Amino acid sequence: APDIPVDEGEAEEFLRACYSEVPKLGPVEPRINAVREQISAIGTYTHTKMELIHGARMAWRNASRCIGRVYWRSLVVLDRRSPRTPEQLFKDLVFHLEAATGDGDRRGNLRPIISIFGQAVPGRPITRIWNDQLIRYAGHDKDGGIVGDPRNLKLTRQATELGWQGKGSAFDLLPLIMQTGHAEPQLFELPETAVLEVPLAHPDLPWFAELGLRWHAVPAISNMRLSIGGVSYPLAPFSGWYMGTEIGARNLADASRYNQIPVIAQRMGLDTAKESTLWRDRALLELNRAVLWSFEKAGVRMTDHHTESRLFLTHVERELRAGRPAPADWTWIVPPMSGGITPVFHQYYAEADLRPNFYLDEQAQE
Amino acid sequence: APDIPVDEGEAEEFLRACYSEVPKLGPVEPRINAVREQISAIGTYTHTKMELIHGARMAWRNASRCIGRVYWRSLVVLDRRSPRTPEQLFKDLVFHLEAATGDGDRRGNLRPIISIFGQAVPGRPITRIWNDQLIRYAGHDKDGGIVGDPRNLKLTRQATELGWQGKGSAFDLLPLIMQTGHAEPQLFELPETAVLEVPLAHPDLPWFAELGLRWHAVPAISNMRLSIGGVSYPLAPFSGWYMGTEIGARNLADASRYNQIPVIAQRMGLDTAKESTLWRDRALLELNRAVLWSFEKAGVRMTDHHTESRLFLTHVERELRAGRPAPADWTWIVPPMSGGITPVFHQYYAEADLRPNFYLDEQAQE
Ligand code: HEM
Ligand code: HEM
Repeated sequence: APDIPVDEGEAEEFLRACYSEVPKLGPVEPRINAVREQISAIGTYTHTKMELIHGARMAWRNASRCIGRVYWRSLVVLDRRSPRTPEQLFKDLVFHLEAATGDGDRRGNLRPIISIFGQAVPGRPITRIWNDQLIRYAGHDKDGGIVGDPRNLKLTRQATELGWQGKGSAFDLLPLIMQTGHAEPQLFELPETAVLEVPLAHPDLPWFAELGLRWHAVPAISNMRLSIGGVSYPLAPFSGWYMGTEIGARNLADASRYNQIPVIAQRMGLDTAKESTLWRDRALLELNRAVLWSFEKAGVRMTDHHTESRLFLTHVERELRAGRPAPADWTWIVPPMSGGITPVFHQYYAEADLRPNFYLDEQAQE
Repeated sequence: APDIPVDEGEAEEFLRACYSEVPKLGPVEPRINAVREQISAIGTYTHTKMELIHGARMAWRNASRCIGRVYWRSLVVLDRRSPRTPEQLFKDLVFHLEAATGDGDRRGNLRPIISIFGQAVPGRPITRIWNDQLIRYAGHDKDGGIVGDPRNLKLTRQATELGWQGKGSAFDLLPLIMQTGHAEPQLFELPETAVLEVPLAHPDLPWFAELGLRWHAVPAISNMRLSIGGVSYPLAPFSGWYMGTEIGARNLADASRYNQIPVIAQRMGLDTAKESTLWRDRALLELNRAVLWSFEKAGVRMTDHHTESRLFLTHVERELRAGRPAPADWTWIVPPMSGGITPVFHQYYAEADLRPNFYLDEQAQE
């Protein structure tokens, strides 16, 4: 909470870790003294650019639910801390998506990026985004049932109340809803250039394309608070690339999301009367093949759960060799399909809440 | 440990729960007084038959890793507490397997059963079985690699040192190794009538049967200590029926077990050069279809992970309605394949170590 002064101990601990990991930053003692003085004077302190960059990378490294952490050093950090209007902020978010997506020849060659907006400061109103991810599909509550993503029903209703009109399709892009302090929330429509999408088809099943399924290339989480050395960054959207199962075994598969397993099973002509035919598993498998194949064909970077499991274990080994614990949450790390045949299944992990890190608060701007 | 007197508090707590759940047992106070006196006189006490039966059922109900607990009330309890020679004990184990398997028209119609042998008593030597399950396949360390189940390499070596000779096949049944106190361990070969096995074939892939895969019908865990009301039963083997994934997604699939995924993928003609073809998932799926189909065709009771997940949630609801917590370990309850599309994935569970329960000690007879 911005009204409580920054914890000096946490600041010091972060600075010591950061300066010891990045020797070119020089001696840490003078910096700790300066930060102490700043905290006692104004209740908080400001990170240098290098502290911000390395702190964000450490936060990713400590995200115990993330299987993609082998790449933590490659995180691109966009420093957006200076004050800006909602309009400028929106432009920065569009830039984030475009830079994450790549353009020209690099379009689809995704890069892990974080945009870090102003830190929480006592008394200063916070700008937040109501969308939990920058790219979200609307969920329309129609007579015959829900069209689109049921997860976003509420957000869709809010956007509609603010004047937004969807096309009523299953994949309507929601606008961003941005709010500064208690001011009226504002709507911003993402330009098409900012959102790369991949229509889904299947290498062996020609009818699959007729389902009209698609997904966007960039997963960009926008509702987590970044915490570095006791300082909170309430708005710090980050993005990497997808692991296929996130789309194929969750977003399009969950009964409470797009619920496509029964649809695909029916098109496959499977006997759905008996569970032991494993019709659900068969439909799930073809859906995931379609996701990986379509992204690959479209030249959009994506990883699969086997490759990423192996890379994650490499990451854990590397971290242990570097003398760091590599905390992990088994229930998130093990993929939602074929868990037992991925190597991450057969391991125990340390569980720890290390800082810097990302937090999902009741309200991210607390 | 048998040299420490039984915990009176635990005894009382168990008796109160047991007598309140089974009203026909009558008032609990006199019984608690009697048990107290017995503990202070000889350091332990003896369960009545009904306490033993209900206590064992409670232990199953509290087994937080078991997805099959909806059936807890149907556990058949064989009271084997009176002293017996290793030869008698072996006969009782054979009886257990036969009763669990069913015979004549009922063969394959498996029933959940537990055989409870003598309780731990200070100074009395304990008989234990080295096998972690009553039915285990040998692992032979041959020049070209391991034939059979690599998990049982050590047990196989021990049996061999005691004079056992396997046929050298991938599915040699190991003998039971039984030891009383520090006496010489003894070998007992299970008769064929005690072990029902199912050869695996596939509904659509004729070559599958040529792999020569098979598995036994009854999973009978023999290395867990049963703890009821402070009393330990070091030898209390229990058995139910299989969930298909235990065989198809673990025993035959794990790289450190039968490792059949690459073999099946090759027979399927899959492109194993690239993970993103999901060749592992495809082979895994066909293996699991084969398991469920073969058991069904053989008339051997087995459950699938979808059905059992739903039943487990029914169980949790029932327990909550009965005012009991239903502790569960997510990492064990969520099946090792298609986790995300089973309803158990999308739940949080209470974690608690409730007694009565089953424990895996360093040495089960402690
Ligand atoms: C580069 C490619 C990346 C891959 C393949 C990857 C993969 C994943 C996956 C599969 C999850 C679980 C998602 C779910 O089940 O909902 C996850 C969660 C997470 N990832 Fe990553 N990730 C990547 C990049 C990043 C980046 C750049 C950051 C931050 C800088 C990050 C931080 C996190 C966090 C904080 C979570 C937990 C989210 C939550 O609690 O809801 N990841 N990641
Ligand atoms: C009736 C059918 C049953 C089904 C379908 C079933 C299912 C399962 C499954 C799938 C597991 C996980 C096994 C693993 O991943 O290694 C398990 C574990 C377990 N089950 Fe059951 N079970 C059944 C009967 C029983 C019975 C009769 C008992 C005891 C009376 C029992 C007690 C346990 C215990 C203690 C574990 C944990 C074992 C360990 O820690 O290694 N189950 N069960």
